[in-house]
Amino acid sequence: MQISRIITPDGPRYAILKPEGYRVCSGTPLSGLVETDQVVTNPDLLAPVEPTTVYAIGLNYRAHAIEMDKPIPEHPVVTMKSPTALLAPGGQIVLPRYLPSDSVDYECELAIVIGKTCKNATQANALEHVLGYTAANDVSARDWQKIYSGGQWCKGKTFDTFCPLGPVLVTPDEIGDPDALQIRTELNGEEVQCSNTSDMIFSVADLIVFLSGSTTLAPGTV
Amino acid sequence: MQISRIITPDGPRYAILKPEGYRVCSGTPLSGLVETDQVVTNPDLLAPVEPTTVYAIGLNYRAHAIEMDKPIPEHPVVTMKSPTALLAPGGQIVLPRYLPSDSVDYECELAIVIGKTCKNATQANALEHVLGYTAANDVSARDWQKIYSGGQWCKGKTFDTFCPLGPVLVTPDEIGDPDALQIRTELNGEEVQCSNTSDMIFSVADLIVFLSGSTTLAPGTV
Repeated sequence: MQISRIITPDGPRYAILKPEGYRVCSGTPLSGLVETDQVVTNPDLLAPVEPTTVYAIGLNYRAHAIEMDKPIPEHPVVTMKSPTALLAPGGQIVLPRYLPSDSVDYECELAIVIGKTCKNATQANALEHVLGYTAANDVSARDWQKIYSGGQWCKGKTFDTFCPLGPVLVTPDEIGDPDALQIRTELNGEEVQCSNTSDMIFSVADLIVFLSGSTTLAPGTV
Repeated sequence: MQISRIITPDGPRYAILKPEGYRVCSGTPLSGLVETDQVVTNPDLLAPVEPTTVYAIGLNYRAHAIEMDKPIPEHPVVTMKSPTALLAPGGQIVLPRYLPSDSVDYECELAIVIGKTCKNATQANALEHVLGYTAANDVSARDWQKIYSGGQWCKGKTFDTFCPLGPVLVTPDEIGDPDALQIRTELNGEEVQCSNTSDMIFSVADLIVFLSGSTTLAPGTV
C-alpha cells in the first residue's frame, strides 16, 4: 500500500494511491485508515508522516564514510532534527538567512516510520514495529553542523525546510527487503548521489534495536 | 501563576496552584486554562509541559565551561532530547541497561517553555514568546554522549526518564528576570550543583534568538 497525505477542500487527509487516483481516507496510518468514496487526482501533497521525533544516522553508508575519510563507526552515530523542519514533497528548501549558511548540502536517506511503540527491540522483532518506509532528504548546513556548533550536528540539520519527506509512505509488504533498496538524488536533473541500502553499515533492524535501547520509540518516530 | 499537570480520577488535567490547593482547569496552558470548581490536594504530578521539541544547550554556564577546560563557545552548542525522555516530578531516573551506561550524570537547567510560534525572534521581542519557566534535569549518560556516539550527544541524553521536568510551570510575571535565578541540585540531600542563571554565557533572550534563527519554535518547545 502506498499512502500520501494530501490537501483537500476539507483540509489535510491521508489517501491511498489506487489506479483511479488518490482514494481519500479518514483516520491516520497510525490509528487506521478507512477508505471513503472520494477520489482525487493530482492533489497538492504534504509529507506522508507527522513525525513525533526524527532521528538521523550519520556516516551509515560505507562508501560515504570512506569518502569522508572517517573510520567505520562502532555504533550508529545519532543526531536529531526537529519535526518543525518538515517539508512537503516538491517544496522549496530555503537557505538559512538568519544564522546564514552558505554550505547547505543534500543527503538522500531511507526513512523508517515506526508504527507501534517500541522499546528494547530485538533483531527478531525489530521490523514488526515498522509502519512503512519513505524517502527523506537530510538537508544539512555543513557550516552550522561542524564549524559554528561546537561539533554538534542538530542545529545545522534542523532549519525550517531541512526535512523533505515523501512523497509516499510505502508499507513493508510492498518493500520486501529494506536493506536492498536503490537510493538516489537528482539535482537539477543531474544524478548527484546513487547508492543502495545494502551499503548501510547498520541495517534497518540494527538501527531499530539500537535506537530503542532503553529508549521508547513512539508511533510516528522517523 | 504556577501551573502543574496532575493525575485526577478523570485523567491528566492542568491545575493552578492556589492557597486552597490545586485548582483543576480545563484546557492547556497553550490553548488557555479555564478554572473549574474542583480543588485537589497532594495529587500525583506529571511534567507540567507536553514538549514538542526539546533543545538542550551545552556548556552554557561560564564556571562549568571553565571547569571542563573548554573554551567559551562563540555560539550556543545545541543538542536535542526526544520528548519520550520526559519524567514526572519525583519519578525515578532509570539507568540504561539495554545499551548499558555506568556514567549517568545530572545537569540542572532552567527550562524555557515557548508559548507562541516563534521564528527569527529579536532581542527586543524574544521573551514575548515565553509561556513560562520550569526546572529540568538534563540527565546525560556521559559514555554514550562522548565515547560510543561519535561525539554526538543526542543518544546519551535521550534515554527514557532522562528529562525530568517540573514540578511547576511558572509564568513570566512571577519570574522577573530569568537571567538572575538561583539554580541548584541536591543528590540524596547533599548539594551537588549551585549556580545562578546570571552565569549563563548566552541569556534566555540570546537562546531564543539563536534557536529561532531560520527555525520555527512551535508552541510547546522546551
